[in-house]
Amino acid sequence: MPHPASPPPVACVLSIGDELLSGDIVNTNAAFLGMRARALGVELRHVAVLRDRMDEIVAATRAATGTSAIVLVSGGLGPTTDDLTTEAIARAVGDELVRDADAVGRLTEKFQRLGRPMPDANLKQADRPSTATWLANPVGSAEGLMVEHAGAAIFVMPGVPRELHKMMIEQVEPRLRERHALTPSRRRMYRTLGIGESALAERIEPVIARARTRSPGLAAMFLHYRASMPEVFVVLEAVHDEAGNAATLDELAALDEELGAALSPALYGIGEADLATRIVAAATKHGRRLAFAESCTAGLSSALLASVPGASQCLDGAIVAYDDRIKRELLGVDAALLAEHGAVSEPVARAMAEGGRRSLGSDLCVAITGIAGPGGGTREKPVGTVHFAVSDGESTSHLRLHLRGDRGTLQRGAALWAHKLLWDRLHAIGLAPVESLEPSAAE
Amino acid sequence: MPHPASPPPVACVLSIGDELLSGDIVNTNAAFLGMRARALGVELRHVAVLRDRMDEIVAATRAATGTSAIVLVSGGLGPTTDDLTTEAIARAVGDELVRDADAVGRLTEKFQRLGRPMPDANLKQADRPSTATWLANPVGSAEGLMVEHAGAAIFVMPGVPRELHKMMIEQVEPRLRERHALTPSRRRMYRTLGIGESALAERIEPVIARARTRSPGLAAMFLHYRASMPEVFVVLEAVHDEAGNAATLDELAALDEELGAALSPALYGIGEADLATRIVAAATKHGRRLAFAESCTAGLSSALLASVPGASQCLDGAIVAYDDRIKRELLGVDAALLAEHGAVSEPVARAMAEGGRRSLGSDLCVAITGIAGPGGGTREKPVGTVHFAVSDGESTSHLRLHLRGDRGTLQRGAALWAHKLLWDRLHAIGLAPVESLEPSAAE
Repeated sequence: MPHPASPPPVACVLSIGDELLSGDIVNTNAAFLGMRARALGVELRHVAVLRDRMDEIVAATRAATGTSAIVLVSGGLGPTTDDLTTEAIARAVGDELVRDADAVGRLTEKFQRLGRPMPDANLKQADRPSTATWLANPVGSAEGLMVEHAGAAIFVMPGVPRELHKMMIEQVEPRLRERHALTPSRRRMYRTLGIGESALAERIEPVIARARTRSPGLAAMFLHYRASMPEVFVVLEAVHDEAGNAATLDELAALDEELGAALSPALYGIGEADLATRIVAAATKHGRRLAFAESCTAGLSSALLASVPGASQCLDGAIVAYDDRIKRELLGVDAALLAEHGAVSEPVARAMAEGGRRSLGSDLCVAITGIAGPGGGTREKPVGTVHFAVSDGESTSHLRLHLRGDRGTLQRGAALWAHKLLWDRLHAIGLAPVESLEPSAAE
Repeated sequence: MPHPASPPPVACVLSIGDELLSGDIVNTNAAFLGMRARALGVELRHVAVLRDRMDEIVAATRAATGTSAIVLVSGGLGPTTDDLTTEAIARAVGDELVRDADAVGRLTEKFQRLGRPMPDANLKQADRPSTATWLANPVGSAEGLMVEHAGAAIFVMPGVPRELHKMMIEQVEPRLRERHALTPSRRRMYRTLGIGESALAERIEPVIARARTRSPGLAAMFLHYRASMPEVFVVLEAVHDEAGNAATLDELAALDEELGAALSPALYGIGEADLATRIVAAATKHGRRLAFAESCTAGLSSALLASVPGASQCLDGAIVAYDDRIKRELLGVDAALLAEHGAVSEPVARAMAEGGRRSLGSDLCVAITGIAGPGGGTREKPVGTVHFAVSDGESTSHLRLHLRGDRGTLQRGAALWAHKLLWDRLHAIGLAPVESLEPSAAE
């Protein structure tokens, strides 16, 4: 029988640093902490991004401890004069700032191991609020801090992403599991590429409405959409109603077939694993070698595939034929074809895919040629026109799209669409089923 | 004589959307709005990221209007059931929600132009708080809103980045300029690659300390560091002291020589233009054609260069030789060299750069070969070992580095380091001066 579960502990994130407010740096740390919190079963309700200003950090920390049992702070632990976080946390919790002799020792040792003298400025990284304990940082000079205040636990981590990642996973999460009975949230994510958010909603909302009539748990499920064009993800999350009912993972999974039919052919998979990860898994499993022939994306599609650990098991390489001369010389595209149809055309895309497959000696090659802008568009071929082709030696498929957005958006969109075409071909020849797949634990 | 300037208007950003808190989406909109605010002369003090929950959005909006003259809201204007922003803003300012017949007409027309029937769900995008005015959205269905409350102006924009960008620039900024006397902030940014933040601080802090003695304006300047490894930027910002003194741009620029000497050879430029933009400008100006031969970065270095509008003026292309067979077949790397030294070695990096230059017929070619991990490392060649080489036909330079971080960090770091090596070669042959350069206005 369902019973009221204890509600998840509430967390907030304080991201500290002028560079986050001046637009110089994108706040990827907050997204990382949000992803970890969700996976742990901690409810992240709020992120506040603050300047490096003493009074503002103090006030935000005090406000955060009033609303959240868990306060995750990042940034401002560095050695320079604009790093104020440690002192601000001490003031917020009413502690004195003390220099910790053991921490000075560890810091000195770290610099010795690097064979570098320790700048005096780094000494402040051995200061801590008097009631705080340290969180080890094996990959940087700034150790983290944990301090309790007003019933909340405050965890302070460095802003350098790789240091924050390691400290969150190795130092903060075990302490959170000790302090709270955590139930990881249950969700099922349907991943699509090639369909807009509102069209997608129209297709699935009848399916969801029917599902809600089947059980109180399914009635309570929360439906989200995540658009990161050209991809849109549908997320079903099991949340508790007032009587404590929540869908089970099996109940959510039982919707796969109906949702899959509604989302086909845009649906490429279920679960957290991204498209590149699924392509690498499918191609590796079936021993297919992959190649890219890229023009307007200039290597981005290949690089996105290679961001997956183990991509070397299936990726041969790519020819970036940004200049038309390279299309002729390295991809063997006929000069007459280029002259007659232009570089952004179906015949050239097909020739690039077939030529790339031959030149690189691979099983499959996907080609991309388009107009990324801002210049170069015409009335017949406006900016955003992209031709794709996939050749597997048996046949070559083609797609023409008109993508929208600025240069960066178009390049990223085209690189991802190329993955979808590659996936569709692998799917069509039976090598890539639409299945539930979570990413493997990587570094 | 300096006189007290009117302080800049204070702004805050409310970013709305569960997907920002669950870690599914990185909040690039806040960085964009921060960058625009800084350039305008608006002081962005705070970003709050909120869930799609009515009471939380209402409370945050009310709090924001109490502290900020300008409230920039993004997200939650879509057609689906989890989009609550319009109604929440109406409640926060005490307005009724009204359906606007003109907006229904515009929405219907947009769908007609796309040749698609309008889903009923989209009708809610024609609702507005009764005292609000619309902000046009020519690239999406969700129009924006402006509404005044308690002396603050609230601007509500869609969360889709390209729609938000256009609306901010074309609709919001002109209204901000009407409402406020804005003085764009003055800052000078020194861009380095290849030196850590604390070592960099040690080198320049004496220079800055001396500069502060020269005038009250220089004494008041604010010094920031922005680390986005492997890059670190030093930012001097002219801020007013209590007597109204602030450094002029000329005073800041007069520090170029001393700071340049302190930061050499890591310094590659001054101003907002990034390294790729500077390489494209220098190579294009001097008619040099560029190529890449990439292994562990798999095309990322080429793609980053091609993210610059006009890259086609200098970029020929790239060969991504992820598999060693491609290194032999397309880059002409000797099989014996690969067997003797391994793919990640100085001789192979040199052979890749020289072979890539020949195969692609370019003036300069930069090669990258390394171990991106998480697997593949050994004691002699741990994960993060990367060899670079640049060939210009006259000579080939080489660099071996041990980069740190996870796979994505290593690949991005290596791709940027390759640009620095290319830059250094262009600099050495007199084609790329370290100069002040702002990005050109692009789409």
